Amino acid sequence: MPITYEHIKTCKQTGARLGIVHTPHGSFETPIFMPVGTLATVKTMSPEELEEIGAKIILSNTYHLWLRPGEDIIQEAGGLHSFMNWDGAILTDSGGFQVFSLSDLRQIEEEGVHFRNHISGEKLFLSPEKAMHIQNALGSDIMMAFDECPPFPATHEYMKSSVERTSRWAERCLQAHQNPSKQGLFGIVQGGEYEDLRRLSAQDLTSLDFSGYAVGGLSVGEPKEVMNRVLEFTTPLLPHDKPRYLMGVGSPDSLIDGAIRGIDMFDCVLPTRIARNGTCMTSNGRLVVRNAKYARDFGPLDEKCDCHVCRNYSRAYIRHLVKSNETFGLRLTTYHNLYFLLKLMEQVREAIRNDRLGDFREEFFEQYGFNRPDAKNF
Amino acid sequence: MPITYEHIKTCKQTGARLGIVHTPHGSFETPIFMPVGTLATVKTMSPEELEEIGAKIILSNTYHLWLRPGEDIIQEAGGLHSFMNWDGAILTDSGGFQVFSLSDLRQIEEEGVHFRNHISGEKLFLSPEKAMHIQNALGSDIMMAFDECPPFPATHEYMKSSVERTSRWAERCLQAHQNPSKQGLFGIVQGGEYEDLRRLSAQDLTSLDFSGYAVGGLSVGEPKEVMNRVLEFTTPLLPHDKPRYLMGVGSPDSLIDGAIRGIDMFDCVLPTRIARNGTCMTSNGRLVVRNAKYARDFGPLDEKCDCHVCRNYSRAYIRHLVKSNETFGLRLTTYHNLYFLLKLMEQVREAIRNDRLGDFREEFFEQYGFNRPDAKNF
Ligand SMILES: [Zn+2]
Ligand SMILES: [Zn+2]
Repeated sequence: MPITYEHIKTCKQTGARLGIVHTPHGSFETPIFMPVGTLATVKTMSPEELEEIGAKIILSNTYHLWLRPGEDIIQEAGGLHSFMNWDGAILTDSGGFQVFSLSDLRQIEEEGVHFRNHISGEKLFLSPEKAMHIQNALGSDIMMAFDECPPFPATHEYMKSSVERTSRWAERCLQAHQNPSKQGLFGIVQGGEYEDLRRLSAQDLTSLDFSGYAVGGLSVGEPKEVMNRVLEFTTPLLPHDKPRYLMGVGSPDSLIDGAIRGIDMFDCVLPTRIARNGTCMTSNGRLVVRNAKYARDFGPLDEKCDCHVCRNYSRAYIRHLVKSNETFGLRLTTYHNLYFLLKLMEQVREAIRNDRLGDFREEFFEQYGFNRPDAKNF
Repeated sequence: MPITYEHIKTCKQTGARLGIVHTPHGSFETPIFMPVGTLATVKTMSPEELEEIGAKIILSNTYHLWLRPGEDIIQEAGGLHSFMNWDGAILTDSGGFQVFSLSDLRQIEEEGVHFRNHISGEKLFLSPEKAMHIQNALGSDIMMAFDECPPFPATHEYMKSSVERTSRWAERCLQAHQNPSKQGLFGIVQGGEYEDLRRLSAQDLTSLDFSGYAVGGLSVGEPKEVMNRVLEFTTPLLPHDKPRYLMGVGSPDSLIDGAIRGIDMFDCVLPTRIARNGTCMTSNGRLVVRNAKYARDFGPLDEKCDCHVCRNYSRAYIRHLVKSNETFGLRLTTYHNLYFLLKLMEQVREAIRNDRLGDFREEFFEQYGFNRPDAKNF
């Protein structure tokens, strides 16, 4: 198995897991956050900077790379690691989420999905076999099975047939995977907020030999309470000896709450996307550095942050760059935000080690502002 | 004097000068190329990267910083070095060039120039005193006198009155300069292509005690032969013991030809601007990495370049990034282009040291393609 999970300990206070995931491109402690590098680049960042902030694994998007530059070019380059000069681990999604979210014109059949390229309008077809073929060409360490991503909310009836199709597609993915000795494949548990369907999906998928399991269909617009409840009844259905990945989650509160519910891996475009609007995550909550009040603020983005940006650049300078549409400003906000989340996960791991993740959650929520009435703005 | 010039040797083959300029923020060998950081950032680059490629001095634009974020904010930050986290030397222009090139609505008077802000349309006024005031607030190591930049071509009559005004303004600049112990001030010799007016301007300015002299009014659309001829009769009029700066020149051929005519310092947006269009300077001439023919080219931008980009990234990857509007692509092309020019100047200095700059010019021109009939495209 190219991907293995080593369990270190369980937090006595919360049940969160501390572990190590081993991959062909290095090992990393979990729970971990994975920066998103959609088009073979984590927007504005260099691989050296990713290494510097402690990123061990990044996510890249199969759908986007398939369209640009094409998986054949990346394969010719020696795979995605070589193409983008990143020697750490890479997880690629299956393309399913993009097909279901970017494209209005799609037709789902048992064989796969017909849809139109969101750039050119060209007709395309993605299937379990095609998604495996592309990810095999990319050479990612962790591949994701091709699943259906139903909208939220969906009826029980629709969700049930979708879960069943996702299970059939999962089997086809395992069969189509051409490089199982070097690339792990994760199955994706669906089922929306229906406990019986999550159980059905988990039973189907855990009966197959995946390297790890993702919880899909969350962070798609449902209330935070729903996400937590679904995790509470879903993660116990997943094997203890394999990594568990919660897709598309990157807000600090959800990272902590996900870890408490037994999740090991997370990814989200949130820290990089808000950075490009000049919004930063700090220990005191979000900070919109574009705001006029920072024009003469020569302090760091976050006084408690020891990242390269906070040690060397002021809010006033970063505001000036962001207001002037200078790329370097977005480099600085992106770097800080990713550092903030990676550091947060380091603190989460430390708290698990010390059986105090519940206490850490309280302290962090209080300081970040998640306990305030207007917390949804954070 | 905060800025001093130490002459090392003169190339026996060409008369080019090898020297050292000493500034309050470090010393550098000349001839040198200065990357342009208009808004307190060399677009896409970090200060660490500038240091890594061997940049010792950068240029920043007084006009732009005056409008955004305002010189008072930069002064409060402790000056431009501190604001942008750059510990090397900084030269600021006077704002004159921008006033004369960006603004249609301007009115030149003896006192100064009335014009409109190119962003907001607001009425503004720039004068020798104001230009000194702003540059004193910025705290640059080398300030430039506020001069009139006449269009090319201009009549002898117009140019003569302009040269005379520039001389009167130069005196006012010296008088208005509030920090002569820590910031050097360069005068700017104007006169277009008229030898008598260049002589007049040089006489006026060298009778004043500037720390160095720039040749202005070139690289404004005149043929390359005109620039070379003007330099041939202008640089001999400048003092031997002070640095000479040719403003706005950054194409490889003109850098070499300027050095041969006794120039020590150059600046230009060319390498960074073309980088943002995906165009690279290489030892074999310009390379438009966007072109389809590089889609599967896994070689470096320039086989003879040993920069970080050429050691780690392929044309195919950089093309993919540039085509996808990914910032990191522009970081890579900018980094390489600046490295290329700084390395070129290192080779120029080495050739002067070995009395063979003429030979080096022939070799370089031949390989870059400047000797080809379509050379203007290079
Ligand atoms: Zn920071
Ligand atoms: Zn290079």
